[in-house]
Amino acid sequence: MTKLLECALNFSEGRRETIIAAIIEAAQCARVLNASSDEDHNRTVITFVGTPQAVAEAAFRVTEKAIDLIDMNQHRGAHPRMGAVDVIPFIPLGEARMEEAIETAHLVGRRLGDELGIPVYLYEQAATHSERQNLADVRRGEFEGLAAKLGDPRWKPDFGPHHPHPTAGATAVGARIYLVAYNVNLDTPNTGIARAIAKAVRAKSGGLHNVKALGVMLKGRNQAQVSMNVVDPFRTPLYRVLELVRLEATRYGVSVVGSEIVGLVPLSVIVETARYYLQLEDFEDEQVLETQLRQR
Amino acid sequence: MTKLLECALNFSEGRRETIIAAIIEAAQCARVLNASSDEDHNRTVITFVGTPQAVAEAAFRVTEKAIDLIDMNQHRGAHPRMGAVDVIPFIPLGEARMEEAIETAHLVGRRLGDELGIPVYLYEQAATHSERQNLADVRRGEFEGLAAKLGDPRWKPDFGPHHPHPTAGATAVGARIYLVAYNVNLDTPNTGIARAIAKAVRAKSGGLHNVKALGVMLKGRNQAQVSMNVVDPFRTPLYRVLELVRLEATRYGVSVVGSEIVGLVPLSVIVETARYYLQLEDFEDEQVLETQLRQR
Repeated sequence: MTKLLECALNFSEGRRETIIAAIIEAAQCARVLNASSDEDHNRTVITFVGTPQAVAEAAFRVTEKAIDLIDMNQHRGAHPRMGAVDVIPFIPLGEARMEEAIETAHLVGRRLGDELGIPVYLYEQAATHSERQNLADVRRGEFEGLAAKLGDPRWKPDFGPHHPHPTAGATAVGARIYLVAYNVNLDTPNTGIARAIAKAVRAKSGGLHNVKALGVMLKGRNQAQVSMNVVDPFRTPLYRVLELVRLEATRYGVSVVGSEIVGLVPLSVIVETARYYLQLEDFEDEQVLETQLRQR
Repeated sequence: MTKLLECALNFSEGRRETIIAAIIEAAQCARVLNASSDEDHNRTVITFVGTPQAVAEAAFRVTEKAIDLIDMNQHRGAHPRMGAVDVIPFIPLGEARMEEAIETAHLVGRRLGDELGIPVYLYEQAATHSERQNLADVRRGEFEGLAAKLGDPRWKPDFGPHHPHPTAGATAVGARIYLVAYNVNLDTPNTGIARAIAKAVRAKSGGLHNVKALGVMLKGRNQAQVSMNVVDPFRTPLYRVLELVRLEATRYGVSVVGSEIVGLVPLSVIVETARYYLQLEDFEDEQVLETQLRQR
């Protein structure tokens, strides 16, 4: 395998199809694997892979296009966000190492600041300050609170101006290991219950390590959702996350109606799910037929 | 994709490693994907893929080697068997059609009969008589009953002599769609319970369509096992099979301690398992990252 980076860029439009399509089109200098839009979140995750150079260029072009087409002053959605292009994480795949993902994040962050006038915070493995590692901290205050945040000396951006881009806000650019965006839908419209469950299952309030969680409302379905990032799905598998959500939900008499993996997921995460629920003994990823047809 | 056949050849040795290795070695003119030996069954499944020609040649060479090294008069094992090479199924993959698998089965069957002196029954899609479609019927009586069976005009073999090969018995050669060999281990040494569960879950006695099942004893673990073939795992998914076994086991106060997929399994079978247990909404096989890296 060659050195590949993945980029799972999140932009703040999940409803208007022509705009979404135009933004995705701008990523074509990399290999676009997937794009997943959510109307309630009003947000799209576009996933593309390629060499570090190709992925960096695609991330820049997508941002350039998105700031032309998205006005954050008009944006409403269930998911926290601070910019037209909200987060740009680079993820090492194959033989690429984290250092290459970090280097690419710095390079792209600098270009967004210098050439597009967007304030940029580096986050997670690319962070320059320990208090910027956690994306939730970086994004706290969201688009509406950006002017105040950027004026605070502790929140001076890593690149770009010390004030929000008027229509595009700010962007978080980072490097991280593969995370899975995983949402669980509840048979209640009570967002308070989803928030309470989110608090119970997320790492920082005493839940599962590697889990970040929010309670949000899916207006289109009239259902509350526990919206999560499992930041190391190899160590904290999805079955454990789902079953803990289910366990916490029972105290409110609430059931799980479904769940959702947003975008792509590594094979080993799916295999681990099957391994747990089927109680498989000694099952290896390599027993999946398609892995064998590929390798040799 | 080109026209590929898979062959999941079963031979009657699962304990003596040097013999197993020598037999597997004979398949190298195809691409050997997997070999899985079971000591209790005293049986190995070797899986190889290639063009119809390569797979046919590998199946012939493996049989030639196995009849040199295995004496069925000495063979004991939990799994029903009638020959040193017990079954040779050919399975279409990629763009290959069932017709090519059937043609290859006929060609290989003829060579085993003519060149190696093994009586051959064609089974499943390759069967020439409707009563030979079901492998269990073909194999009934096992090695020890072969002389009587081959003497019965209704069980005249499709190829080869009308008497057993003295040390290698007989071989079933067939063509079929992808099946998954799936075993469920119980926390009881009572084989009667495993047999009763097998009877409850298998198609022909009123259970799940596409499931064949036996109750066997795993002496090495002192546990009974429901040993199954799921002959169409795309229509009868593994979660349904496992949960029905579990349901039937509860009437005896017996639990499932684990399960086992023997050999290889198509990705979509694993994805369907995750889709069910995680209650995934709208999850496609193509969301598995590795499928994307392969296709483009």
